Amino acid sequence: MMSFPNSLLDGYRNFMSGRYADARDRYRQLAENGQNPTTLVIACCDSRAAPELIFDAGPGELFVIRNVANMVPPYEPDGHFHSTSAALEFAVQALKVKNIVVMGHGRCGGIRAALDPDAEPLSSGDFIGRWMSLVRPAAEQIGSNDVMTPAERQTALERVSIRNSINNLRSFPDIKALEEEGKLELHGAWFDISTGELWVMDSETLDFIRPEI
Amino acid sequence: MMSFPNSLLDGYRNFMSGRYADARDRYRQLAENGQNPTTLVIACCDSRAAPELIFDAGPGELFVIRNVANMVPPYEPDGHFHSTSAALEFAVQALKVKNIVVMGHGRCGGIRAALDPDAEPLSSGDFIGRWMSLVRPAAEQIGSNDVMTPAERQTALERVSIRNSINNLRSFPDIKALEEEGKLELHGAWFDISTGELWVMDSETLDFIRPEI
Amino acid sequence: MMSFPNSLLDGYRNFMSGRYADARDRYRQLAENGQNPTTLVIACCDSRAAPELIFDAGPGELFVIRNVANMVPPYEPDGHFHSTSAALEFAVQALKVKNIVVMGHGRCGGIRAALDPDAEPLSSGDFIGRWMSLVRPAAEQIGSNDVMTPAERQTALERVSIRNSINNLRSFPDIKALEEEGKLELHGAWFDISTGELWVMDSETLDFIRPEI
Amino acid sequence: MMSFPNSLLDGYRNFMSGRYADARDRYRQLAENGQNPTTLVIACCDSRAAPELIFDAGPGELFVIRNVANMVPPYEPDGHFHSTSAALEFAVQALKVKNIVVMGHGRCGGIRAALDPDAEPLSSGDFIGRWMSLVRPAAEQIGSNDVMTPAERQTALERVSIRNSINNLRSFPDIKALEEEGKLELHGAWFDISTGELWVMDSETLDFIRPEI
Repeated sequence: MMSFPNSLLDGYRNFMSGRYADARDRYRQLAENGQNPTTLVIACCDSRAAPELIFDAGPGELFVIRNVANMVPPYEPDGHFHSTSAALEFAVQALKVKNIVVMGHGRCGGIRAALDPDAEPLSSGDFIGRWMSLVRPAAEQIGSNDVMTPAERQTALERVSIRNSINNLRSFPDIKALEEEGKLELHGAWFDISTGELWVMDSETLDFIRPEI
Repeated sequence: MMSFPNSLLDGYRNFMSGRYADARDRYRQLAENGQNPTTLVIACCDSRAAPELIFDAGPGELFVIRNVANMVPPYEPDGHFHSTSAALEFAVQALKVKNIVVMGHGRCGGIRAALDPDAEPLSSGDFIGRWMSLVRPAAEQIGSNDVMTPAERQTALERVSIRNSINNLRSFPDIKALEEEGKLELHGAWFDISTGELWVMDSETLDFIRPEI
Repeated sequence: MMSFPNSLLDGYRNFMSGRYADARDRYRQLAENGQNPTTLVIACCDSRAAPELIFDAGPGELFVIRNVANMVPPYEPDGHFHSTSAALEFAVQALKVKNIVVMGHGRCGGIRAALDPDAEPLSSGDFIGRWMSLVRPAAEQIGSNDVMTPAERQTALERVSIRNSINNLRSFPDIKALEEEGKLELHGAWFDISTGELWVMDSETLDFIRPEI
Repeated sequence: MMSFPNSLLDGYRNFMSGRYADARDRYRQLAENGQNPTTLVIACCDSRAAPELIFDAGPGELFVIRNVANMVPPYEPDGHFHSTSAALEFAVQALKVKNIVVMGHGRCGGIRAALDPDAEPLSSGDFIGRWMSLVRPAAEQIGSNDVMTPAERQTALERVSIRNSINNLRSFPDIKALEEEGKLELHGAWFDISTGELWVMDSETLDFIRPEI
């Protein structure tokens, strides 16, 4: 008995008759030669914010980490399992990517939870509560303000969290060194699910601005 | 000064004039009502194996975790940051997904490293070494066999690792309970980058077979 | 001797040969019958944010108050001179406008000053310091946060100040009553000088959003 | 729900496709570098007398205060909110404008009210009554004369009020000092809504005359 979701099999049929058929040689070459992406994107698991769709990226272009709220924890070489740090290490050391993009988005459920003082653990493990504690200091500062609307506070924290993750990227000695040598660039981006607007972080002011399109 | 990669901005322009323009109402509705995906896919960061491409999925359809070698660690409620466990908790408890698909692929760099007895740490943190130790027992069994070719050993471990992750999913009490209640299904899939073939795990035999297309 | 600025006289010549020549009858009729605008706009003195330009408004369309940071003080019937309150009274009671729009803008010098803890009085009278104290409580909340960038804090306060002014409008008994009777609507708007974007306040969430254009 | 007046959104569309599209670079530069207007215009809120239209002024050219009857109160550093004095202070001290133009116009409702002995307060706050008392002494002199027609009395007071405001400008110590140093010029102007005629005050005779066009 095999019960694989039909919706996924239907999509797979479209892939085979469409994109794969069009890019058959590209897939074969990528299989032979291995991947060589120049960009790592750290994105959210959110079903509305897939980087391959937003950046119209084909096979081999983007190495992608996806976790809740597209966060990077600080450097902690403590022998535990570190999914995100392991993928970072692989992208930077093995693939030698030239760009890392921390990509956030509007209406992020993780960020909303971080701003909710009454948020209950989702399970006895409270993995989300612990994970989102990465932005707790910023969440407390922004959440304590009662003049901005909830939506304004959420957008603010979504962007602050991107800067926070970029700072955490620099806590990895190798990333910091490569950035200083000009071999690696760290970028921030924020996607508005509703309007489709992409905002990118200005590397000097750290503000999020809309690029010329 | 703003130095966002032009290749990404070019792709974004295509997205806005293409997919977004076509699905504007869908994006707005998803922003208004929030996401409601029924499927979580745990996939690899590999740039050649994006689930949205392989399953031709649109916005709102797939909640996606991506880490190296699409692995799930065992349940460890120890107060550390657990990127993958946090995302699992969010997908199962908050989004109440009905399906979890652990999706592996051929030519996986993480699995290759796990099979390489001479693999050196990629950095002093050795995050990848620690992360891939999740499949070390299986890697040692398969690696010690010298009758299978390297490619055969790698494909074998790629598939064993998917079953290993599905077993680890069941170490999460809530996931185990929901599966037993018939409210959540756990699936395995393996994608051949070269041929584009999708193989799915038979839920009874645990073999990987090619679905009828 | 008459030393009227030549730049203004040059502009006036353009007006006479252009807009006035085109709208001569409209001007005569407006002189005969008096003005009958249905909208009051409370805008900033800023030279970059003239409402007649942004709303492409002709003669007779907008009754306009302009002060620093487009603010409305609370109702204070204390017998002092109240420029803004007097104009409000005239617009609501004599002209019976149907809409009041509090229109802010980006890069507002007054708001920037309100956020600057080291701001010195501009003169011994310190009129600006006193005037901007209308938003001091909000400025202190937003200014105390050190995770948003200066530009983010300024945009946030520009929008909070618009809501603050709308609340102050409701401290005028007649405005409150007319609004409750459905005879007067209060609106907020924010103009981005750089991009030309107009954001309007959602009357329910109080968020600023971009209208369909 | 968002109920922003459609007439304004229509005008905004014209602005974006017209003036903004034509002056995009100018707006961006003004946003980057800040405003640097050399002229402050103190004009009436009247919908028929927008200085940007009459002087065909583009973005960044005029810093504009608009209150009822374009008046300047005397210097009163009493700690109350002074909308007009605050804007004056900002224009003179922060922007260092070179010209201040007090610009009146025909058919001014505020001046008419000041000349009406039977004028009732418009509301219990009587803000207009208090505000227009700035010209009461002149209004009583001119109103007591029964040989001029009502229209003649009104035009006369409109012009007297402009001179009165210019005298009040000189009650601000810094403005008086800058004018004496030749760093700031004070001007009067009067606009005839019906004919479009602009009359400017001769700085020696204080008469209003029509400039050579």
